Amino acid sequence: MSPNDTRRPVVDTLLAGRPRAPRAEGAAFAPANIALVKYWGKRDAALNLPVTSSLSISLGELGSETRVAPAGRPGDTVLLGPDPAPAGFAARVSAYLDLVRPAPDFGFRVETHNRVPTAAGFASSASGFAALALALDDLFGWALDLPALSILARLGSGSACRSVFDGFVEWTAGSRPDGMDSHGRRLDATWPALRLALLPIETSAKPVSSRHGMRHTVETSPLYAAWPETVARDLESARAAIATRDFPRLGATAEGNAMAMHATMHAARPPLVYWTPATIAAMRRAHALRDEGRAVYLTMDAGPNPKLLFEADQADAVRAAFPNAVIVAPFGGPSARKPVA
Amino acid sequence: MSPNDTRRPVVDTLLAGRPRAPRAEGAAFAPANIALVKYWGKRDAALNLPVTSSLSISLGELGSETRVAPAGRPGDTVLLGPDPAPAGFAARVSAYLDLVRPAPDFGFRVETHNRVPTAAGFASSASGFAALALALDDLFGWALDLPALSILARLGSGSACRSVFDGFVEWTAGSRPDGMDSHGRRLDATWPALRLALLPIETSAKPVSSRHGMRHTVETSPLYAAWPETVARDLESARAAIATRDFPRLGATAEGNAMAMHATMHAARPPLVYWTPATIAAMRRAHALRDEGRAVYLTMDAGPNPKLLFEADQADAVRAAFPNAVIVAPFGGPSARKPVA
Repeated sequence: MSPNDTRRPVVDTLLAGRPRAPRAEGAAFAPANIALVKYWGKRDAALNLPVTSSLSISLGELGSETRVAPAGRPGDTVLLGPDPAPAGFAARVSAYLDLVRPAPDFGFRVETHNRVPTAAGFASSASGFAALALALDDLFGWALDLPALSILARLGSGSACRSVFDGFVEWTAGSRPDGMDSHGRRLDATWPALRLALLPIETSAKPVSSRHGMRHTVETSPLYAAWPETVARDLESARAAIATRDFPRLGATAEGNAMAMHATMHAARPPLVYWTPATIAAMRRAHALRDEGRAVYLTMDAGPNPKLLFEADQADAVRAAFPNAVIVAPFGGPSARKPVA
Repeated sequence: MSPNDTRRPVVDTLLAGRPRAPRAEGAAFAPANIALVKYWGKRDAALNLPVTSSLSISLGELGSETRVAPAGRPGDTVLLGPDPAPAGFAARVSAYLDLVRPAPDFGFRVETHNRVPTAAGFASSASGFAALALALDDLFGWALDLPALSILARLGSGSACRSVFDGFVEWTAGSRPDGMDSHGRRLDATWPALRLALLPIETSAKPVSSRHGMRHTVETSPLYAAWPETVARDLESARAAIATRDFPRLGATAEGNAMAMHATMHAARPPLVYWTPATIAAMRRAHALRDEGRAVYLTMDAGPNPKLLFEADQADAVRAAFPNAVIVAPFGGPSARKPVA
């Protein structure tokens, strides 16, 4: 059974009664997002249903801009910027497009521009699949509501379901086998002073994909047993910190949660260690800032690049300690233009 | 209440009916030991009673040689090699000596020589307190049996209870509040081809003592909840690997267990990371040897220095990859002299 056998009935339910004929073009932007409480472990691999809920912050203007149009001939053309996308990624996109293809010989042309500093080793699959889902909605004129769009995006990449929204987003794990209750929703909160810094310390390709790393960890790490309970507590703490705008609490929770996620990988068998010597050096520099009394915290996804969390008043100190940092203002700021989505 | 209030009744029980008058001098050697399944977390801090059992390998000729004698005046003199021991360590030794001091104005002279490459950042408290316990037994002529000596050593430093023995040693956690069932015993097994390599990659002092790191992890790490069950399975696996002389199984179990221990620290709040950039580099080099099909595994204690586990036929490859490695043959070998204890 292929993943699409499981995904197709979900898509058919979402699109029941919606138009099936494409217009000339669809376009959309979706922001990248960084989880403050991580998604780590699936309960259903075909539907990308998570073991736990998660909570993220979208990156405003940083993300993916996608145009999708009928190719006018069989077979898909998948471009990343001006170039054909890597074969593996293109195949994943085509399998996803199979779910909404009007006819077997109908080809799509998909063109994605990532407004993300690629040197920061930044995963673009979340914003990419969110933008693709939104662009398809535009192309076909489905006019799906946000939960449905979030579910559609999730079928492409789990964390894409959070990139359908701006700001703070909580992805509720849900409990239904078909995942109809597993989607993102925007939290009613803004935090204009919030800043993130991407640290482009490692440019080489990841040795192990996060997809594989997640599965390996769930299957072999004896510490994974304690992960769901950790997430439950961290979610509660992160929600409370956002509600009360308690930055040290939000930062410490995000850092603790990211470290716990990496810890579950370190305990996998054989161990999975994404950290490089440069990761450790950056981590120590961040901890040194904290020892100086600065509220600077870090988070890390399944890769070697830490990201920093802080408030605007620490931006100069962060820039001094990390000259290569790309600083992002998720809720807008001097260097940010208005989010598109 | 001081720790000695809890320790004293235990010592009194152990020494009931034994001589109280010292002879001219006592002397003993005890090997250092490296845990293959780690001791990480105390259920009683004063008695050094562990949450779980653990399993170690003693390092043959590497360890501590201790002489203890009446000082002939009040106050203790504690020497490490030719020099006075650091004040903190000397105070810890004096508090321990209080437990067996014949009279308040009786001073001891303790002289310890560590036959351990100190550049490898090697903890000497295990062999040091084991040698001290054995030397005191010699000084007073107590003639305690091995379990009693192991308990006596444990009161100085938890893992010292394993350094009373050569070879593979299992420290049974026990369940009694007074710890009379918590001591080491030698496993009936030898493994002449077994080798360990100490990697002197970091010479600076540890920023956080393992004592403090252990407590911080137990108190704050959400993943510690899964540690006791992890140890239970690893102990079973290590015992079986030793019984069947299955080196890849022993190595993988030891590496997995050490990584899980560090993972519990990484998930502590705030995180506790002993790894340095050099640790990661050494780890990657060891994994690279494994990718070449070589059965080389690593273990790590609460510090930045990995140790390698392998069999004699891999010694040349290990030397080539780690020119600074200090290779140890726990059961004797070309470069090892007969263990003393």
